[in-house]
Amino acid sequence: MTSVKLAAGLVCPVPANAPDRVQLGHGSGGKLSAALLQERFLPGFGNPVLAALGDAAVMDVAGVELAISTDSFVVSPLEFPGGDIGSLSVHGTVNDLAMMGARPVGLSAGYILEEGLPFERLDRIIASMAAAARAVPVPIVTGDTKVVERGKADGLYINTTGLGVRLPGAAPAPDRAQAGDAILVSGPIGRHGMAIMAAREGMAFESSIESDSAALWPLVQPLLEQFGAEVHALRDPTRGGVASALNEIAAASEVGMVLEEGAIPIPGPVAAGCEMLGLDPLYVANEGVFLALLPRRLAVRALALLRSHPLGAGAAIIGRVVTTHPKFVILETGLGGTRIVDTLPGDQLPRIC
Amino acid sequence: MTSVKLAAGLVCPVPANAPDRVQLGHGSGGKLSAALLQERFLPGFGNPVLAALGDAAVMDVAGVELAISTDSFVVSPLEFPGGDIGSLSVHGTVNDLAMMGARPVGLSAGYILEEGLPFERLDRIIASMAAAARAVPVPIVTGDTKVVERGKADGLYINTTGLGVRLPGAAPAPDRAQAGDAILVSGPIGRHGMAIMAAREGMAFESSIESDSAALWPLVQPLLEQFGAEVHALRDPTRGGVASALNEIAAASEVGMVLEEGAIPIPGPVAAGCEMLGLDPLYVANEGVFLALLPRRLAVRALALLRSHPLGAGAAIIGRVVTTHPKFVILETGLGGTRIVDTLPGDQLPRIC
Repeated sequence: MTSVKLAAGLVCPVPANAPDRVQLGHGSGGKLSAALLQERFLPGFGNPVLAALGDAAVMDVAGVELAISTDSFVVSPLEFPGGDIGSLSVHGTVNDLAMMGARPVGLSAGYILEEGLPFERLDRIIASMAAAARAVPVPIVTGDTKVVERGKADGLYINTTGLGVRLPGAAPAPDRAQAGDAILVSGPIGRHGMAIMAAREGMAFESSIESDSAALWPLVQPLLEQFGAEVHALRDPTRGGVASALNEIAAASEVGMVLEEGAIPIPGPVAAGCEMLGLDPLYVANEGVFLALLPRRLAVRALALLRSHPLGAGAAIIGRVVTTHPKFVILETGLGGTRIVDTLPGDQLPRIC
Repeated sequence: MTSVKLAAGLVCPVPANAPDRVQLGHGSGGKLSAALLQERFLPGFGNPVLAALGDAAVMDVAGVELAISTDSFVVSPLEFPGGDIGSLSVHGTVNDLAMMGARPVGLSAGYILEEGLPFERLDRIIASMAAAARAVPVPIVTGDTKVVERGKADGLYINTTGLGVRLPGAAPAPDRAQAGDAILVSGPIGRHGMAIMAAREGMAFESSIESDSAALWPLVQPLLEQFGAEVHALRDPTRGGVASALNEIAAASEVGMVLEEGAIPIPGPVAAGCEMLGLDPLYVANEGVFLALLPRRLAVRALALLRSHPLGAGAAIIGRVVTTHPKFVILETGLGGTRIVDTLPGDQLPRIC
């Protein structure tokens, strides 16, 4: 039994399940994750670059505007329809760079291997990671391998850290959303999370769902080249899904958002799977989709640009940024009603990336 | 039972313990680690920057010579005399940059946390990591946190990836050692590995051994500023110790090396601990010591420079590079004998970093 000292000197017993320890929900990308970051990591590591909390850090190094992003991948299972931990570890990090407007120029790969991992499986994952990196293209320039005892790494974990060079004129940032912006999504949502869920639970949906895992830079680059700094914010809605990503932008920019439920592209099998499992697709993770916020007058042209690329064929305008209800994201339902789309406290689904 | 196809079409049964799976020894920094890299990772990821196999990759980005290094830390126990996984994760990565002649300009931190990790412990490690980074100084500019289920991360693992800018004129590389070079070590060896061993096994040596874990840039910088490209090679002898580091340089540079046993600084408690456990201090890991190879005529001046700094007070000239026996490291013992100092196949001690 632990205890907490109150101001008055009283000691309050805390039940065994109180948060004096890391819980699975701290990894969910929701409110618990945010609390972990705000209460523990930022006070310790605090500096202006880290505190900007973009998908990647942007720093000036000898006159070059570099972006750096790191991600550790612990996805379970290691292989799933549409990808595996190897390809995912490239896409996830490259996409974080892209969300800051940066062209990837190099990746590092840090492997933590579990004793007993079959080489056959490791070889498949290395090949998949290499193919994903070549497709971007981005070279894997440095690496590291550690081995831990049986049972201590669930097969393997991969950290990828990416280095990128920011496109001149690009300035997407979570705090630059403005009232009057349109909210675009580059494709149908919820596929990655549902593919993982299906693979993990051995579930068969009506039709199979593949992860959308993909490198987004080829789609982000023309958008930034055409609209430059008018692209106010970009975000790939991974852990916590579209709902969490938009809440983060709304909070950082101190704006409100309105989503039109009917405009949000949700594949039939994702909708059916979510229905069956009691999940909300707005909170399901994506790994090959991004949100873009830019002035309404540019929205139709931006939509056309996205749709002209295979990665953006399913793009849609799903909402708008407003001055009312700052920091809140509201969903207009088909029936004329509205509901608040909040950030989840913890998990819908742990270890999806 | 697995099997291996031979060229002639025969099938050779492989016993259950054959290396078709990852073994702990693959993480040791010895021959098994090298085989893992050469046979599995390099063929997949191969590119000239990665193939250079320096402690860090060096690449030209928009005209700036950048160094990038990544390391995942899985040390057990998490806290040990002289440091913890937090400070170690800063020192290890910053030192890899320093070994390529690069001043650290930014670090990323990727945490994999195990469900149930007490926040009290996490807070101590974050504080230690932050203090180590401030002391370099280098900012932690971006981070990531994942959580895995109880039992799947042994407390926590940390990946740090470092970005550095190469000092103008510096060009240390594993393949630049030359016959006629002197081999210097910046301080007494074996302390990190023995401190970990003592902490892990609860052993008490005559006097306590603290890890040497430290950031080496403050000592490397003046060396490179004074001797520039005449510093042919630098290496921090971590996993696999001094023996493995020198074997790597000897192989890459195709030179031979001769070490004088009596000149190698080994603290008394390290020698006693190694004696007791049947370990060879030449293979024990260091985290605050580096090897420098530069022309013999500069060796005495370089030694004086190292010794003038607290980090290098125990520096010594321990050997020389020769043309005879290329790719072999030979130890001259006090009794006039010699023995080959080979790379170990696997572990003396797993999970020391």
